[in-house]
Amino acid sequence: MQFRTDLALERHEIIKSSNIKGIKFEETEKDDAVITLIEVLDEDGERQVGKPKGKYYTVDLPEFSHETELLDGRLKALTDIIVQLLPDSNGAVLVAGIGNDNITPDALGPCCAEQIFSTRHIAKDISKDLGLPEFNSVSAISTGVLGKTGIETAEYIKGIANLIKPKAVIAVDALASRSLSRLGKTVQLSDTGISPGSGVGNHRTRIDSEMLGIPVIAIGIPTVVDGKTLVCDLTENDENTDSISNEAEKVMVTPRDIDLIIERASRLLALSINCALQPHIEPEFLLSLM
Amino acid sequence: MQFRTDLALERHEIIKSSNIKGIKFEETEKDDAVITLIEVLDEDGERQVGKPKGKYYTVDLPEFSHETELLDGRLKALTDIIVQLLPDSNGAVLVAGIGNDNITPDALGPCCAEQIFSTRHIAKDISKDLGLPEFNSVSAISTGVLGKTGIETAEYIKGIANLIKPKAVIAVDALASRSLSRLGKTVQLSDTGISPGSGVGNHRTRIDSEMLGIPVIAIGIPTVVDGKTLVCDLTENDENTDSISNEAEKVMVTPRDIDLIIERASRLLALSINCALQPHIEPEFLLSLM
Amino acid sequence: MQFRTDLALERHEIIKSSNIKGIKFEETEKDDAVITLIEVLDEDGERQVGKPKGKYYTVDLPEFSHETELLDGRLKALTDIIVQLLPDSNGAVLVAGIGNDNITPDALGPCCAEQIFSTRHIAKDISKDLGLPEFNSVSAISTGVLGKTGIETAEYIKGIANLIKPKAVIAVDALASRSLSRLGKTVQLSDTGISPGSGVGNHRTRIDSEMLGIPVIAIGIPTVVDGKTLVCDLTENDENTDSISNEAEKVMVTPRDIDLIIERASRLLALSINCALQPHIEPEFLLSLM
Amino acid sequence: MQFRTDLALERHEIIKSSNIKGIKFEETEKDDAVITLIEVLDEDGERQVGKPKGKYYTVDLPEFSHETELLDGRLKALTDIIVQLLPDSNGAVLVAGIGNDNITPDALGPCCAEQIFSTRHIAKDISKDLGLPEFNSVSAISTGVLGKTGIETAEYIKGIANLIKPKAVIAVDALASRSLSRLGKTVQLSDTGISPGSGVGNHRTRIDSEMLGIPVIAIGIPTVVDGKTLVCDLTENDENTDSISNEAEKVMVTPRDIDLIIERASRLLALSINCALQPHIEPEFLLSLM
Repeated sequence: MQFRTDLALERHEIIKSSNIKGIKFEETEKDDAVITLIEVLDEDGERQVGKPKGKYYTVDLPEFSHETELLDGRLKALTDIIVQLLPDSNGAVLVAGIGNDNITPDALGPCCAEQIFSTRHIAKDISKDLGLPEFNSVSAISTGVLGKTGIETAEYIKGIANLIKPKAVIAVDALASRSLSRLGKTVQLSDTGISPGSGVGNHRTRIDSEMLGIPVIAIGIPTVVDGKTLVCDLTENDENTDSISNEAEKVMVTPRDIDLIIERASRLLALSINCALQPHIEPEFLLSLM
Repeated sequence: MQFRTDLALERHEIIKSSNIKGIKFEETEKDDAVITLIEVLDEDGERQVGKPKGKYYTVDLPEFSHETELLDGRLKALTDIIVQLLPDSNGAVLVAGIGNDNITPDALGPCCAEQIFSTRHIAKDISKDLGLPEFNSVSAISTGVLGKTGIETAEYIKGIANLIKPKAVIAVDALASRSLSRLGKTVQLSDTGISPGSGVGNHRTRIDSEMLGIPVIAIGIPTVVDGKTLVCDLTENDENTDSISNEAEKVMVTPRDIDLIIERASRLLALSINCALQPHIEPEFLLSLM
Repeated sequence: MQFRTDLALERHEIIKSSNIKGIKFEETEKDDAVITLIEVLDEDGERQVGKPKGKYYTVDLPEFSHETELLDGRLKALTDIIVQLLPDSNGAVLVAGIGNDNITPDALGPCCAEQIFSTRHIAKDISKDLGLPEFNSVSAISTGVLGKTGIETAEYIKGIANLIKPKAVIAVDALASRSLSRLGKTVQLSDTGISPGSGVGNHRTRIDSEMLGIPVIAIGIPTVVDGKTLVCDLTENDENTDSISNEAEKVMVTPRDIDLIIERASRLLALSINCALQPHIEPEFLLSLM
Repeated sequence: MQFRTDLALERHEIIKSSNIKGIKFEETEKDDAVITLIEVLDEDGERQVGKPKGKYYTVDLPEFSHETELLDGRLKALTDIIVQLLPDSNGAVLVAGIGNDNITPDALGPCCAEQIFSTRHIAKDISKDLGLPEFNSVSAISTGVLGKTGIETAEYIKGIANLIKPKAVIAVDALASRSLSRLGKTVQLSDTGISPGSGVGNHRTRIDSEMLGIPVIAIGIPTVVDGKTLVCDLTENDENTDSISNEAEKVMVTPRDIDLIIERASRLLALSINCALQPHIEPEFLLSLM
């Protein structure tokens, strides 16, 4: 497999069979959303899909850039999946926005983190004063980029997590897909953490429960197709394209309206996370705080 | 010619002959820079190159993202060309940064405009007080994007130019090239204005001397390859790729380190323009103001 | 009158009488909002209030930084006043955001302009396709700052207005108030344009119907108290404070939570303007586009 | 002492004597800079100056907003002091930018951190390949603001420091001064960490060697005068001003050209830190990387 994708669904499609050993596949339709669940059950499944054991949800959406409504079935679908992926126990959650906010298609994580409703510092009695149920403890950080901080994203999160001791980390990042047609139209949510080399950047050390010692929920939307992947796909590895292929390694393919996609996708993801983490508060109120 | 490029040099290369009727071609090497001049002399030339009559300079540079030094031969080469393209007469100059600063590869124009040394509002005696020669009158604007302003870039510039009455406009914009290998490594400077549909955006009305009634110097670097152009090139218009081709229209191909390219290219272009417009002031001093 | 204020209400308060020759004064309460109208009727009134002839509405609001709800009586009150101040005739409107977005308390104008629903470039049939009433023609610009552009704000607007030929300009700007207690809690709307030297910046040429040849609706909230005004007020022009007074000229006083104030005030003002300019479209839908 | 200042120099001035028990005071002039050292030697000194034991350097500068040259005596003076405050031993350094980059006068820390030359992630052999001496290990973070992250600045730094194990932290933050005349014209450097409640924000937990277990060098420039401090100073605690005083608590006083001050001060501080941390590399080269 020469091409690069962060979507389990795209790896699964290649195998072209929905009945593979070691893999569970489910498709449901709910409200406005088509939801696919791929569960990698064991090492057999891992080998075939090329992704670690765990659950991968994919929610197909209309193009973000054409959508304006937030409070509909998509929000409900995303919120439900996040709730399901989170551990049942009580405890704080740390949301980490990953990526480079100086590169539009890589800015999903930081833009989302900025809209998270952080509550860890708010005294318990404030929610009571407001007549609201007690807030769950939430913190939100942007990890910056290795080239500017000198610190690997995984280390950065580990440092903060060691101090805060959350029950889980939610990591939000831009993803790479194989197919142009999925850019900005799919959300992937998984309980397996984030693979190295995802999306635009080079987040090399894997961010997962093994590294952090707690569950890591990864949420992302595909915003780029890897240059080399596109070239390989189009040329079917024709030998004459070797030189193009080398240059293609340095580029990425991204939608022309990527600014709108990042703005709206980060808003929808942040609202979904806020709703999942404060289930006793109305979505309308959480939206008004963003 | 199916593909899209804003570089006269790339159109010229296709004709694959340096001795074409209606076109003058010159290549020189000076200091650290290779400079190509393509002059489209008449309608014959226009037809062949697919670009309007005028001079197109191309300066090849090492990758911006690896370069840090500003005060070297590249700056001298760029400054000299700008001086040569500007009308000899005295008079004010309006610098217009074109493009969308929310989309990194389209942000070259606005980033450059912000670093222009505007002097139009400074009383004549200030330069004397500083012991400097009198400043030439310079204004700098960013035109925003049609989707946000409701105003075409060409109209926007015309409105401001009608009021300021400059002797020339310098328009800075991100360009589209055909070839991945030119991204972030070439500056094109011309006296022909900017063609519609350039670069990332959709700046539809042509910005040139016919539209504005004064000379328009256009300066840009290629930051994107059009998605469809890449696909056509790779597949040689294979009929089976029609569906990919449709999706390719909505995407662009851009370097992974586009943030660094925009940061450094906008700095070099702005400094070149500042030096060309204030030839009596030291480049070191102009750099310190940026 | 030594102190500086952009609020007609504060000038009126000093006269300490609600029955002044040449001035009409009205206070109403509607929904959640207290609205004051001061109408300067003639030269007598101008002399006394120190503001040009015209209507000055003041809407008192709870602190922006504590407010999250947008779709309530405040929105209705603001929208109604804007509709009333606009000329009845059909025609385009140009919204101009004034101020420096690199200085938080001066960023109200540019932040508001970015959220305006511009429609001038949208073909008439698009609204029909969406099943919406025909859009009124709206454009929106940010004028930048004189120090960066070299162009006076008034000239900048005039250049664009000459080209677009709108029936009216809506100018949004941060204001200076005399009193700390009004910062971030008042909206002033008038049909008299904007006086020079307002708010944080130095927008020297008056922006009004005389300068532009069309009505100018000015909308702003006080975000700063002038340093000198505060010092004079506190010291009652004590002679010993002369040296402090000189330094005070270079400073401004602004709330600690000015980031929240700008974010929320610009959102409310932009939504009010959008609602006033597209009266046939639901506020909820206009909000979802912002 | 009712007023608030982060400058040891201003507390010292009140005592109005340069020969105080427990305090060493030195003034030197070097190149373009006047440098004052106040050393708080023991508990006696602490009580009198109201600042913890340690060295406080103050470097007086011409107004940042009028200065453009970076490579002069001021840089040398600042670099020398930073070198002197840092522990002699080998080891990594973590630079932390503190403050809110959405509020201009509080953005000094984050703006400075962005310009730090981070090297921790660069393989040792890269510097050799470039023909440069081996880089010292440097990381740089921005800590965000409590209201957005839910994490106290001190905790945030501790989390990252626990992981990186630097020999020292350099914390950069905007400061509050008592006097308008010091705004933007003074740099304070100390080895005592940062006191709670500094500058604009509310960084409540003290960031010092006791908290972090390693030396903390604090660097800042005064960008605000506390509203209440100004009022108290002007009114000499006149009882009639109680209501003003309450409102004054919510405001800050800051220069009108604070955007220029932040831009230039953050550049000078970042360059000073870069020079102090990479003493074998030329300042010109470090500047070209920024």
